[in-house]
Amino acid sequence: MIVILKKNPEKQKVDQLVESFKKLGLAIHYSEGTQTTIVGLVGDTSRLDMDAICANEIVETVKRITEPYKAANRRFHPQDTIVEVKGRKIGEGNFTVIAGPCSVESEEQIICVAQEIKKSGAQFLRGGAFKPRTSPYAFQGLEADGLKLLLEAKKVTGLPIVTEIMSQTHIDLFADVDIIQVGARNMQNFQLLKELGHSDKPILLKRGLANTIEEFLMSAEYIMAGGNNNIILCERGIRTFETATRNTPDLTAIPLIKRYSHLPVIFDPSHATGIPWLVEPLSKAAIAIGADGLMIEVHNNPKEALCDGAQSLNFEQFDQVMETIKNRADVEQKTF
Amino acid sequence: MIVILKKNPEKQKVDQLVESFKKLGLAIHYSEGTQTTIVGLVGDTSRLDMDAICANEIVETVKRITEPYKAANRRFHPQDTIVEVKGRKIGEGNFTVIAGPCSVESEEQIICVAQEIKKSGAQFLRGGAFKPRTSPYAFQGLEADGLKLLLEAKKVTGLPIVTEIMSQTHIDLFADVDIIQVGARNMQNFQLLKELGHSDKPILLKRGLANTIEEFLMSAEYIMAGGNNNIILCERGIRTFETATRNTPDLTAIPLIKRYSHLPVIFDPSHATGIPWLVEPLSKAAIAIGADGLMIEVHNNPKEALCDGAQSLNFEQFDQVMETIKNRADVEQKTF
Amino acid sequence: MIVILKKNPEKQKVDQLVESFKKLGLAIHYSEGTQTTIVGLVGDTSRLDMDAICANEIVETVKRITEPYKAANRRFHPQDTIVEVKGRKIGEGNFTVIAGPCSVESEEQIICVAQEIKKSGAQFLRGGAFKPRTSPYAFQGLEADGLKLLLEAKKVTGLPIVTEIMSQTHIDLFADVDIIQVGARNMQNFQLLKELGHSDKPILLKRGLANTIEEFLMSAEYIMAGGNNNIILCERGIRTFETATRNTPDLTAIPLIKRYSHLPVIFDPSHATGIPWLVEPLSKAAIAIGADGLMIEVHNNPKEALCDGAQSLNFEQFDQVMETIKNRADVEQKTF
Amino acid sequence: MIVILKKNPEKQKVDQLVESFKKLGLAIHYSEGTQTTIVGLVGDTSRLDMDAICANEIVETVKRITEPYKAANRRFHPQDTIVEVKGRKIGEGNFTVIAGPCSVESEEQIICVAQEIKKSGAQFLRGGAFKPRTSPYAFQGLEADGLKLLLEAKKVTGLPIVTEIMSQTHIDLFADVDIIQVGARNMQNFQLLKELGHSDKPILLKRGLANTIEEFLMSAEYIMAGGNNNIILCERGIRTFETATRNTPDLTAIPLIKRYSHLPVIFDPSHATGIPWLVEPLSKAAIAIGADGLMIEVHNNPKEALCDGAQSLNFEQFDQVMETIKNRADVEQKTF
Repeated sequence: MIVILKKNPEKQKVDQLVESFKKLGLAIHYSEGTQTTIVGLVGDTSRLDMDAICANEIVETVKRITEPYKAANRRFHPQDTIVEVKGRKIGEGNFTVIAGPCSVESEEQIICVAQEIKKSGAQFLRGGAFKPRTSPYAFQGLEADGLKLLLEAKKVTGLPIVTEIMSQTHIDLFADVDIIQVGARNMQNFQLLKELGHSDKPILLKRGLANTIEEFLMSAEYIMAGGNNNIILCERGIRTFETATRNTPDLTAIPLIKRYSHLPVIFDPSHATGIPWLVEPLSKAAIAIGADGLMIEVHNNPKEALCDGAQSLNFEQFDQVMETIKNRADVEQKTF
Repeated sequence: MIVILKKNPEKQKVDQLVESFKKLGLAIHYSEGTQTTIVGLVGDTSRLDMDAICANEIVETVKRITEPYKAANRRFHPQDTIVEVKGRKIGEGNFTVIAGPCSVESEEQIICVAQEIKKSGAQFLRGGAFKPRTSPYAFQGLEADGLKLLLEAKKVTGLPIVTEIMSQTHIDLFADVDIIQVGARNMQNFQLLKELGHSDKPILLKRGLANTIEEFLMSAEYIMAGGNNNIILCERGIRTFETATRNTPDLTAIPLIKRYSHLPVIFDPSHATGIPWLVEPLSKAAIAIGADGLMIEVHNNPKEALCDGAQSLNFEQFDQVMETIKNRADVEQKTF
Repeated sequence: MIVILKKNPEKQKVDQLVESFKKLGLAIHYSEGTQTTIVGLVGDTSRLDMDAICANEIVETVKRITEPYKAANRRFHPQDTIVEVKGRKIGEGNFTVIAGPCSVESEEQIICVAQEIKKSGAQFLRGGAFKPRTSPYAFQGLEADGLKLLLEAKKVTGLPIVTEIMSQTHIDLFADVDIIQVGARNMQNFQLLKELGHSDKPILLKRGLANTIEEFLMSAEYIMAGGNNNIILCERGIRTFETATRNTPDLTAIPLIKRYSHLPVIFDPSHATGIPWLVEPLSKAAIAIGADGLMIEVHNNPKEALCDGAQSLNFEQFDQVMETIKNRADVEQKTF
Repeated sequence: MIVILKKNPEKQKVDQLVESFKKLGLAIHYSEGTQTTIVGLVGDTSRLDMDAICANEIVETVKRITEPYKAANRRFHPQDTIVEVKGRKIGEGNFTVIAGPCSVESEEQIICVAQEIKKSGAQFLRGGAFKPRTSPYAFQGLEADGLKLLLEAKKVTGLPIVTEIMSQTHIDLFADVDIIQVGARNMQNFQLLKELGHSDKPILLKRGLANTIEEFLMSAEYIMAGGNNNIILCERGIRTFETATRNTPDLTAIPLIKRYSHLPVIFDPSHATGIPWLVEPLSKAAIAIGADGLMIEVHNNPKEALCDGAQSLNFEQFDQVMETIKNRADVEQKTF
């Protein structure tokens, strides 16, 4: 971290500032010029609060050089992390497809979807039991009953399940869930992240609609700081001025995250745009750019879905998309 | 709501769709043209899911005409809502100033700040006990102990207190808090909103960094749907491409919200930009544009604050800003 | 277009409004309900001004159903447009690579770059003679002399050239240029677009940093309205809150534009992020998602480039990227 | 400027780099640490190209400390600039109102509007003769004839005129115009800016929809670099994710620009939102936050305006808004 001081700072105040850094175990790299004085800080600066330093009256500005995350940082963990779930590997050369409906609606529906997506080659079943809806009047999910139906579908098909948690008070209910999803709106629900850090469940963490890549990795860091390293990151579109799609997929985030971090990254083409015919071209692009997997919405009857039907594929469409996905994962030498 | 059908839709499918709307108690307004068929829906459309309708194969597009919120909607409640807290009125011609430090740090600090802001004219004391920090390594607040210190400061000064809740599991801890704040990152933590809907505490709801005004009002609606109408909305800046300030204050949201909704709206100039010298001009602008109050960060010693010190005013600065605020609230004929 | 009227509009004013639409040759589709009156307009609504209609006191809101562009619209021209330049075809199954330095710096430099990119397989040479720089103190390009050097490089290598125009007063200077580029900052320089509409030169039109896809197609429409249909669109990143890259590539724009329009679309991975190692993964993603070509910055000596050196590839890097590009264009069954 | 080198850079390459800076007349401030080597550059760094430096293989990153603009920078010109036009002063304690229609439509219309706004107290008449319209099919303005009508209205009322230029080829046509406006879409039309730099006409420069404050000041710098210091800056809303208004007014830009620069800044509430009832509250806020003036759209018959009628005020509305404006300018001790 580099602290740039204002012109002609008071000697005594500089000494106090430098002393405060030394107390934190940082090595100091002090350099006084005619116009600018620079204080370089070497050591673990991840615990330093840039705002607090800026508030010092002799400080002009502060620039971070190293990233503020450590556990999630590839610099300190050069090897790719592989998250293992029921014998399936996510990350490092493996390609994973998670599919299923926006919401679990009935036993018949979820089992039927599970069977069909399994036939097409999906390795995980997703389905919402607790649904974050913008409107309090919209269908909120079957909640605990939805979780039971998911487990039923798992029993029938053998597909491990992925489903979203919306509150730390529900963690016990999720005991048999294979991967717990944290949705975009909860990416900075820090209490929830902390609780999940004390769990050993794999966590699928979605990027917030207006969160930077750095903030995304800091949220992963929250979970890892608690001891849980089983994290799968999921890019799902960001909010921009463009209104042609619901969100703007930020595919570039995928190679950037893979360079900065060792965690696996998947992409959700369904939520990223809300337009079903874009699922195939976006899936191809995500594979080409280095994603470790995809999460796709599939519904037995999209037009009667209780939520987000408009963005779901039907079975036939999904089967076709899966053909393409397998082919392109192969081109990228990923193990399907 | 207007549903526009694709060209030459199948008669039978149109009938099914129309029938499904009638079952929901909606009046139908059907109009067939040579190129377009339009189905107008009259009645309470707030429970309709636009996405689900869009997923119907004969539907081209769906347009909402009325807002999706009801309880928060001025159309149905033309009178301004006044939130009363310990005899102080917030909204409709009253002007409210909430001030205090980002974090509660010690008994001495919070009492000292409370006394000074009271002297300058603030009506409420704010202070963070549970702190949402981007980094897990940053100071997370004194938590339950912080709440106790706030209550201590309240006892000494008589100022009612405002503090942020980060988890629905903490609601009991907040029993003696006067106004519970929901922070920007939790604006769409729907489980928390639902729980707060069952409380009768006044809620100060902050706008999310990337949330539209409509989404903001839908989050208020979540709380109101549970029966709690004591809501104060708070604009605090949105995320844009501009990097000169931490966030971009959206002052226009204030008159827009006041037109769409009957709820009081205040503005937080400290978090909106992170730059202390902007607090005064932004406060003046917020008053001029119709805000019902301000929330301002004040610290006894900004440069040694444990969080966000860089954006806090010291006592002398706050006292000067308060002079200006009182003067301009008077110009706008608000009761201070 | 659908015009929704306010509740209980004055009969006479409705008649006037409807009459004004009929005069424009539009068929009217009038439908009066208890709460809403809807006026549907059928016919060529591309010349209607939505704002002007909205200003009518009896109008609640106006919604467009069809796109405001016609010549660029695939609805009216279902076949892909192929732009032919010196025997090379751009669009519809052909894959095009345009490469070269940000700026033309010297005869030696531009000929050397041209020879090397040709060896690696690029079909067009790009190079800036007139440079749009944010700072008036930055290198502004060799201007007319730069154009001469580009033509020199074309003579030596046979590669047709692409270069940016910054003013309509320069059109004569561009007489021997093969493809005239309009940069992102001039996407809505309407006077320039109009002038280029009267030319028969192929135009490479870049998307503005904050322009929607619809506005992008409207700018193409400006050129086409003048009679010039030889347009190649170029996505090059948009401005968002994310600061990890200079701009955020909007790859989704590629399939969207290809669905809405018949014009070829290429992608510029160099300007989209400003980070050279991202050129390869982004190129792969762009090919996978359906781009008709790529425009890539290559420099003989990136670290001494007079402009944007940081984002350029050197010859060896470009040669490697070209291997990948050829391979992936083949996977997508594009003719290279 | 601070250049941070990669770990263990080659001694010879460091020397070359340092030498290259010395040749540019910069003083070097070199500081080698165990983990980082920092090169501070002191002197006029406004001509340095950060990208070019970044491209050097031994450079990790480059941080600017001082602003890249000089002529527009308050650091070097602490006094407010006053732009004088026909005896009227713009800036430093004076408050200016520019009003008029989006487009000049007829002699009768523009003279009538000029007379009415003069009666209400406006000091300048605005009116578009050349109109930048998103659609080539929309009304493009009366062009040269429109300029003549504006001059006619000036003759009748004595109000100096402000009108937008869209091409450097039109500069001669603007010889009798009092203030030449550069619109948001042309803020980075650098050829136009350069030409205007050689003129001595006052220039009203509008901020681009997606341009940062720094880029805005760099565009002013382009004009000033040519010798023309008569610049009035105009904030008019930026593009964000919020769709409740056409653009999001960035009122905070006003005090920021006034701190960074000595140039006067006005605000355009009409284009900033496109909603006429917001003109009054936004005008009040702009005055309160320190604007030197306002530009407001007024039309004799907003509902029949040929362009942007929906955002115009009628005479009665404008007269009321002017009462408020005069009152609040007085509160801020501005001379009207």
